[in-house]
Amino acid sequence: MNWQTKPPRDPNFEQRVTKSFSAQGFMNFIGAKLGKLAHGQADIVLAKNPNLNQQHGFFHGGVIASIADSAGGYAALTTFDADCGILTSEFKINFLNPAIGEFLIARGRVIRPGKAMTVCQTDIFNDEDTHVATALLTMVRVTNLQN
Amino acid sequence: MNWQTKPPRDPNFEQRVTKSFSAQGFMNFIGAKLGKLAHGQADIVLAKNPNLNQQHGFFHGGVIASIADSAGGYAALTTFDADCGILTSEFKINFLNPAIGEFLIARGRVIRPGKAMTVCQTDIFNDEDTHVATALLTMVRVTNLQN
Amino acid sequence: MNWQTKPPRDPNFEQRVTKSFSAQGFMNFIGAKLGKLAHGQADIVLAKNPNLNQQHGFFHGGVIASIADSAGGYAALTTFDADCGILTSEFKINFLNPAIGEFLIARGRVIRPGKAMTVCQTDIFNDEDTHVATALLTMVRVTNLQN
Amino acid sequence: MNWQTKPPRDPNFEQRVTKSFSAQGFMNFIGAKLGKLAHGQADIVLAKNPNLNQQHGFFHGGVIASIADSAGGYAALTTFDADCGILTSEFKINFLNPAIGEFLIARGRVIRPGKAMTVCQTDIFNDEDTHVATALLTMVRVTNLQN
Repeated sequence: MNWQTKPPRDPNFEQRVTKSFSAQGFMNFIGAKLGKLAHGQADIVLAKNPNLNQQHGFFHGGVIASIADSAGGYAALTTFDADCGILTSEFKINFLNPAIGEFLIARGRVIRPGKAMTVCQTDIFNDEDTHVATALLTMVRVTNLQN
Repeated sequence: MNWQTKPPRDPNFEQRVTKSFSAQGFMNFIGAKLGKLAHGQADIVLAKNPNLNQQHGFFHGGVIASIADSAGGYAALTTFDADCGILTSEFKINFLNPAIGEFLIARGRVIRPGKAMTVCQTDIFNDEDTHVATALLTMVRVTNLQN
Repeated sequence: MNWQTKPPRDPNFEQRVTKSFSAQGFMNFIGAKLGKLAHGQADIVLAKNPNLNQQHGFFHGGVIASIADSAGGYAALTTFDADCGILTSEFKINFLNPAIGEFLIARGRVIRPGKAMTVCQTDIFNDEDTHVATALLTMVRVTNLQN
Repeated sequence: MNWQTKPPRDPNFEQRVTKSFSAQGFMNFIGAKLGKLAHGQADIVLAKNPNLNQQHGFFHGGVIASIADSAGGYAALTTFDADCGILTSEFKINFLNPAIGEFLIARGRVIRPGKAMTVCQTDIFNDEDTHVATALLTMVRVTNLQN
């Protein structure tokens, strides 16, 4: 049976993810907002701001990577038990189109959940639905750190 | 003959990189400073700040990726002609140790310069010389965008 | 307008890909077969064989990476002009489930076509439709090498 | 204290790695040979052979990835306890120069050993010391599979 057809291990995952997200100083600092959450999915929305640019006036690649990382991480966290935390092991990101627009949306989803490691993919689009970037991420479940 | 033994294509690369770095709103926003520059090398230093944290109080992975990206990009830019700009095509980053400490230093260097693409590696350490992360990056030389 | 709704630049791409595939000594050596081809898509099928195993009797990760690379590359080649060749710039692969089964199928598809670089994704499944691996690849169009 | 200055957990790692390597049907099939082994390091040597080529007569990218994977994996295995096995979680490889020459040598080394995951880097050179490719790999220690 597929994991997606099973109930979430923690039925209150929305509350847990929301709390963890608000504890990420950096997401707050750049003005990122948590969007839609579902079992195995998490969206993050980020409005444009000159503080987030690289030298040509596009969103900085690191900013795009940052919301890709958090969206993938929270997608994974929706599949965990309530007492487990998460760390990023590694990720890879390809930049596909210039990152311009009113806002970016990073759509994280679990590809393969696992006891130790969970593999996620995050696709980033702008407000005109241009595919800005895609990232493949490995998340690690930790029991000694909350969320 | 190895590219490293040749003179830089633009002898004023320091000035050019410094100008481009100061135009990166995002590097300024997070408080990152350009460190040592050499032909094929660029360092970026970043002091700790609660605004840059993830939920456990470590530097956010996206912040680490951001200085890895800029350090790799500027390492590549030191090898370019004066009228060429740079964009990141893709990168991959592995997180090796908890990103804690007074500051991080990202050491970018060119592994393989190229006409179209330049491959770089950035290693990130903290102030206790702990190896925090390593990234492998592909940079694209562009002629229609300045720096 | 989306590239997928446009006609292929080379209407005879099937013939061209098939010829290039049969020139890959290595694909022939491991017994890989070209499967379905479409504009922006290429499948490769590989039957099990003890010569292709790693030490636990699974398909070797390098074998999986090999068909992921060729499937992604030929997916890209279906979108090129008739006189252009292809080289792999880089790829990243995540192994998701043990690579066991009667055969593997690598499904390559173009995510973002480009003049210089084309980004592809290849998903690898076994004969029971288990998701064995996923790869993200950057392909380079070359004009000085055929196919 | 650095792990490299400590004695290996299994003083007989050479014997263990050699046995595991000879059980890799695929390494034998392509004619790869184990080279120098040391604590945290493993080399693999591969002679040229038309069976290992892509369509332009270079070594196939998948072949290069295969020896990169095995060299990184065996570098990690030299640091493990005698009863632990290894699986590849993911890797990323950048191709730097055309893979031509009499032979390739893949030099795998541990960057960051870990209880669950070990991060390695493999650099691939040809017989003229051209830097053909570089790979960053995550290896997983397993206790339910021997070597």
